[in-house]
Amino acid sequence: MKCLPERGRIGIFNRSYYEETLVVRVHPEFLAGQKLPQECVSKSIWTERFQDIRCIERYLHRNGTIVRKFFLHVSKEEQQKRFLARLDNPDKNWKYSASDAKERGFWDDYQEAYEEMIRESATEESPWYVVPADNKWFTRVVVAAAVIDTLASLDLHYPKVSEAKRKELAAAKKALLANK
Amino acid sequence: MKCLPERGRIGIFNRSYYEETLVVRVHPEFLAGQKLPQECVSKSIWTERFQDIRCIERYLHRNGTIVRKFFLHVSKEEQQKRFLARLDNPDKNWKYSASDAKERGFWDDYQEAYEEMIRESATEESPWYVVPADNKWFTRVVVAAAVIDTLASLDLHYPKVSEAKRKELAAAKKALLANK
Repeated sequence: MKCLPERGRIGIFNRSYYEETLVVRVHPEFLAGQKLPQECVSKSIWTERFQDIRCIERYLHRNGTIVRKFFLHVSKEEQQKRFLARLDNPDKNWKYSASDAKERGFWDDYQEAYEEMIRESATEESPWYVVPADNKWFTRVVVAAAVIDTLASLDLHYPKVSEAKRKELAAAKKALLANK
Repeated sequence: MKCLPERGRIGIFNRSYYEETLVVRVHPEFLAGQKLPQECVSKSIWTERFQDIRCIERYLHRNGTIVRKFFLHVSKEEQQKRFLARLDNPDKNWKYSASDAKERGFWDDYQEAYEEMIRESATEESPWYVVPADNKWFTRVVVAAAVIDTLASLDLHYPKVSEAKRKELAAAKKALLANK
């Protein structure tokens, strides 16, 4: 909420509040680390978090912010290939993280969490785009197309120039030409 | 949202987002000035704003923030007295604002807006306290009592001192006494 773009601007969020329903869900010990009051950690906490997310995005929509969400789906095989490249290729070593490899052990849990997260937070106004991401060029085409479609739907135009303004422009041109 | 206190701290908001359902409602021209996209300004905009407020406060509650709301009700007669004092008393002149006096002309519209705002946004978790405010001492007693009740309901305690810590304290005291 603190980092939202003001109206008329575009903001890009990487991960965002959705992590609160993903990594925290796969590893409940992270939830304990959040030091929530005991009575806030109910059995329905995930349902509540999904509801809060839907409400926040509805609020944004009602106030003129357009929300588009992209899930880049990388297959298990492709992930293995990418992690191996980070180990084998010196230029990619910096990208390697032991915790990424460890999280791979929770693959099925994450898939389940992703699926429910998308089911629970996809709405007509704030849709999820689930994008196959094994081929980066394809991912980029899909995301770019969705962004272009959204911008086009705004039906934006340059401000109309009034008759008075047109005269002002003509006078300015005349003055500029006279003063070489 | 940007100014909310972090968990464990107390924040006091004067007016806050409720103004979006009050002065803007009494003066719809202010709404036009907000430059919302046309499709966002529906007939149900006030219903939607109340719903958004309830959802935001529910979200806060679920995450361990306690919300208490106070409406200080000043009677029409008392308001006249206070405005006159601001005109008559040189020490209070700085407080006088022509727009306050002008808004007095919309008294009934404001009362209606206040009433609906309270009806629509009072919830069990985030209650409104409507406080008679013609006598400042009385207002202060009521608000202070509500704050104290809320703090007491948290059942807060000092951290428990462990056996090991107690030994550490005893050793520190011994060292301190030995070193005059």
